[in-house]
Amino acid sequence: MIKIIIAGFNGSMGQKAVKLVNDTKDFQLVAVYSPVVTDLQPASYDLADEVQVFNDLTNIKTDADVWIDFSTPKAVFENTKFALGHQIRPVVGTSGLSDQQVEDLKAYAKDQHMAGLIVPNFGISAVLLMKFAKEAAQYFPEAEIIEMHHADKIDAPSGTALSTAKQISEAREPQAADNAKFEETLPGARGGNYKGIRIHSVRLPGYVAHEQVLFGSEGEALTIRQDSFTRDSFMKGVEVAVKNVGKLSELVVGLENVLS
Amino acid sequence: MIKIIIAGFNGSMGQKAVKLVNDTKDFQLVAVYSPVVTDLQPASYDLADEVQVFNDLTNIKTDADVWIDFSTPKAVFENTKFALGHQIRPVVGTSGLSDQQVEDLKAYAKDQHMAGLIVPNFGISAVLLMKFAKEAAQYFPEAEIIEMHHADKIDAPSGTALSTAKQISEAREPQAADNAKFEETLPGARGGNYKGIRIHSVRLPGYVAHEQVLFGSEGEALTIRQDSFTRDSFMKGVEVAVKNVGKLSELVVGLENVLS
Amino acid sequence: MIKIIIAGFNGSMGQKAVKLVNDTKDFQLVAVYSPVVTDLQPASYDLADEVQVFNDLTNIKTDADVWIDFSTPKAVFENTKFALGHQIRPVVGTSGLSDQQVEDLKAYAKDQHMAGLIVPNFGISAVLLMKFAKEAAQYFPEAEIIEMHHADKIDAPSGTALSTAKQISEAREPQAADNAKFEETLPGARGGNYKGIRIHSVRLPGYVAHEQVLFGSEGEALTIRQDSFTRDSFMKGVEVAVKNVGKLSELVVGLENVLS
Amino acid sequence: MIKIIIAGFNGSMGQKAVKLVNDTKDFQLVAVYSPVVTDLQPASYDLADEVQVFNDLTNIKTDADVWIDFSTPKAVFENTKFALGHQIRPVVGTSGLSDQQVEDLKAYAKDQHMAGLIVPNFGISAVLLMKFAKEAAQYFPEAEIIEMHHADKIDAPSGTALSTAKQISEAREPQAADNAKFEETLPGARGGNYKGIRIHSVRLPGYVAHEQVLFGSEGEALTIRQDSFTRDSFMKGVEVAVKNVGKLSELVVGLENVLS
Repeated sequence: MIKIIIAGFNGSMGQKAVKLVNDTKDFQLVAVYSPVVTDLQPASYDLADEVQVFNDLTNIKTDADVWIDFSTPKAVFENTKFALGHQIRPVVGTSGLSDQQVEDLKAYAKDQHMAGLIVPNFGISAVLLMKFAKEAAQYFPEAEIIEMHHADKIDAPSGTALSTAKQISEAREPQAADNAKFEETLPGARGGNYKGIRIHSVRLPGYVAHEQVLFGSEGEALTIRQDSFTRDSFMKGVEVAVKNVGKLSELVVGLENVLS
Repeated sequence: MIKIIIAGFNGSMGQKAVKLVNDTKDFQLVAVYSPVVTDLQPASYDLADEVQVFNDLTNIKTDADVWIDFSTPKAVFENTKFALGHQIRPVVGTSGLSDQQVEDLKAYAKDQHMAGLIVPNFGISAVLLMKFAKEAAQYFPEAEIIEMHHADKIDAPSGTALSTAKQISEAREPQAADNAKFEETLPGARGGNYKGIRIHSVRLPGYVAHEQVLFGSEGEALTIRQDSFTRDSFMKGVEVAVKNVGKLSELVVGLENVLS
Repeated sequence: MIKIIIAGFNGSMGQKAVKLVNDTKDFQLVAVYSPVVTDLQPASYDLADEVQVFNDLTNIKTDADVWIDFSTPKAVFENTKFALGHQIRPVVGTSGLSDQQVEDLKAYAKDQHMAGLIVPNFGISAVLLMKFAKEAAQYFPEAEIIEMHHADKIDAPSGTALSTAKQISEAREPQAADNAKFEETLPGARGGNYKGIRIHSVRLPGYVAHEQVLFGSEGEALTIRQDSFTRDSFMKGVEVAVKNVGKLSELVVGLENVLS
Repeated sequence: MIKIIIAGFNGSMGQKAVKLVNDTKDFQLVAVYSPVVTDLQPASYDLADEVQVFNDLTNIKTDADVWIDFSTPKAVFENTKFALGHQIRPVVGTSGLSDQQVEDLKAYAKDQHMAGLIVPNFGISAVLLMKFAKEAAQYFPEAEIIEMHHADKIDAPSGTALSTAKQISEAREPQAADNAKFEETLPGARGGNYKGIRIHSVRLPGYVAHEQVLFGSEGEALTIRQDSFTRDSFMKGVEVAVKNVGKLSELVVGLENVLS
C-alpha cells in the first residue's frame, strides 16, 4: 500500500488525482493540502473520514510515502522542499520551477538522501515516443519530425517536438552537417532545422495534439506516432510515477526515468 | 476496338506502352514509330505481322484512332501536330512542351476540329488526390500538405504538391490572409506558404514518392494520401487516357479531364 | 436570407442548431417548436423577441423556408409531413424513420411538388470519404476498409464502413468473386467480407471514430481517411444542408446530395 | 578490424553481403565459401587477391572472426557447427534450421564457450517495432495489429505480426480474457484473435510489406509502424549483427539481442 498526500487537491488536476488515488488498488489517500481552503472536514470534500485536510504547510504531519503536487507555480518550490525534508517522495506535476530551483531541489534531495520525480509531461504516449525515437536513432540516423496541433497553438514547433529532436540528435552519431542538398522554391518547405533534424509544424482546426517521428533508411521506414485526444490521459502517467518513484535514488526530471 | 500507334515505341516507356496495348482487350496496336530505327520488320521487335513500323514521320499512313507519344522533348511538338493533322487523337506522355507550344497545339486542334490529351502525370493516385483535394476544399478551407520523397530529390516542394496547393487555393473561398497567428522559434517550422496553404517537404532515404493533404475543421479531420512505389503505376493512367480520349472535344492538359 | 424553424429546439442537438443559425450570416431563426415546452415567451429561451415559440404542431404558422428537425423518432414522421405540406423544406437530422416511412414521405413530397433532405450522417468528412471512395473505385477496384472506434462500440463493422463498402461495390466493375487466395492461420485475420471488400474493425480506448479506405494498384496506393473527434463537427453539415436544400427538386436521403 | 568469411557467397544475398563487407569500414573479407564453385581464383569473382576461396568445408582454414551464412537450408546446420567448432562467431541468415537443430547448436556453442547469432529477420525496422511494442505494452495493455502486404501473399496473418502479438502478450499483465463485448454483423470484422490481441491482415496490389501496432488508452494513442519497401534494407541488419556479435556470450536467436 502506497500512502499519498495531494497538494493542490482542490484544483482541476488535483481533483483528478484524488479520483485516481481512490480508484487505484494499492494506493491510499492519507492527506490533502491546499492553503486556500478553510474547512478542514474531509466530508466537505467527499473524502473518507481518515483523510487529513491541511491548509498550512507548517502544520502538515503525515506518514505519507508520496507527495503528489498539483499546486501553483508560486507554491511548488516550497512544497517540494517540504516533502523532501520530511521524507515524503515528491511527484511534481506543477509547472513553473526555474532551472535554478530544480538544481537547488536536486542538491537538497541529495543532502536529505531522498529521491523524487519532477514531471514536465505526464502523457505516457509522448514520453514513450521520445524514448523509442532515441533508441531508433542509433540505427536510423536520418529522421524528421511532424507535429500537428489545433489552430490556436501559437508556438511552433511544439516543446515535445523540440525535445524529441534534441534526444535524437544526442543519440545518433554525429552527422555530416545538414548539407543543403536541396533547393526550396518555397521558403520553409523543408521545415525548421534542429541540428540537421527537420521539424514540420501543422496547425489545423479539429486536431488536438499529435506527433510523428519518421525514420528512413535504404529500403525501409519506421514511424512512431502519438496522439493526445484529451488531458484525461495524464492520470495514467501520474499512476506510473507514483508506483515507481520508490525505486529512484535521486531527484530526477522526466517520466522516462521510471519507464523500464 | 481502339486502334493505336505508338511514337517512341523503342524507349523504356514506349516498350511498356506496347505491352499495355497488347495486353488490353479492345486495344489494337496497328503501328509504331521511331526515327532512330532502321529495321522496319515488325518481327524484329516481337510485334505481330500486321503492325506497321515507321521511321519517317512523313511516311506514316495509318488508320489509328489514338497516337500514344513517348518520344523525346525535341520530337513531341511535331509528332503531336502530325497526329492532330491526320485525325489521330494524341495521348502525349512526353515532357518538354513549352507553354507556347501547348497553346499553339490547342489552337491547331481547334482548327482541325480535333481533340487530345497532354498528360504531365499519369499516376492516377496523384491525379485523384488533387481532384479530391479540390472538392474537399469547398467544405474544409483549412488545409496543409505534407509530401515525402527519397533523400535525392533536390527540389522542395514537389511539383505535385504545388499543383495541389494551387487547386485548393482556387477551390476554396478567399481566406483571410494567412495571418501569422504563430511564432516560429525555429524558422521554417510552419513550412512553405502558398497563398495560406502550408506545404511541408520531407526527404528521407527509403521513401519513394508520397503526398498527403490534411484538412481540419471543428471536431473532425479528412486526410487524402497517395503513395507511388514504382513507375509501373503509370501504365494504368495511359490505359484510362486512351480509353477516354475519344470523349474529349478539344486538346486539354491533365489526366483529370478524363476521370469522370 | 434563409428563414428557419427548428423542431426539437430544446434538445442537445436542437440547441446547437439554434446557436448555428444565430451565428450564421444569411440564416434567420423565425420560429422554434417543441411539444414539451409550456412557456411560449422567446426570452425564456434566450431567443430574440421576433422568434415564435410553438408547442403544438397544428398551431404552427410561419414563413420559414427551411425546417430543421432534431425532434424524436416518434415525432419525426409527422413533423416532416407537416413541413412538406406547408411548403417548408425539411432538413431532417432525427433518426428513426423506417424505410416505409421514407418512401411515404418521398411520395408525399412529389405530390406536394416539394423537396427536402433526410440526413443519417451530418459528418462532412465521413460523407466526403464515401463520395471519394466511390469515385476512386472506378480506377482502383481493389479496396479494403479499416475503421477504428472507442472500445465501447458494440457493433462491428460500423454503419459508415458498411455504407462505404456498399458504395465501392456498386461503383467498381464486377470483380471476380473474392477468390480466397489466402489461408487464415488465425480465423478472421482477413477481416469481414462484403462482396469481396474486406472490412477491419479496431476497438481501442482513447480512439473516437475514424475510418480509412485503402486502395492499391500496381506500384501505387491511395488512402482516404476521416477522423471524428467530437460531435461538434455535425453542425458544419447542418449548415451545408440548410444552404443547399433549396437547390433540390425532390426529397432525398444523404448529405452527399447537396455536396457539389 | 573484423575479419569475415561468407558462406554462400555466390547467391543473391551472399553477393549483397560481399558488397556490404567491402563497403564497410572496419570490415575485412578474408574468405568466401560455396560447395558449388570449382574455380578457386578470387579474381574470378572480383575479389581482392588475399581473399581465400573455398569449396570444401573440411578444407577451410582462416583467421576470420565472424562467419556470415547465406547458404542453403541443407547446409546451414553443418556450416554453423563448423564455425562454432573453429572459434568463428556465426551470423546466420539462412532459414531452414529446425527447433531441434537450434537447440543442438546452442548446446554445442555452450560446450565450445562460443557465441553467435541466428537471425530470422534482418529488417531492423521490423525488429525495432517488435521491441518497442513489447515495451509499450507494459503501459498500454490494449493493442491491435494491422499488417499490410501485396496481394500475392498467401498466409494471413504475417509471421512478423504473429511474433509481435506474442511479445505483446508476454509483456502485458494478464488481461481479462477477450470478453467478446461486441457483435460482428460481418464475421471476421474484428480480425484474428491472438490471446486477446486482434490482428488484421490487408492484402492489396501495390503494397509491399508494412506493419502497424496500435495502442490506445484513456485520451491518448500510440502507433508504431514499419514499412519494408525492398529487401535491400536487410544488409543494414547484417551490418549491425556483425558489428555486435562479439558482445554476445552465447548462441541466441533474433537481431533484437544485439540492439542496445
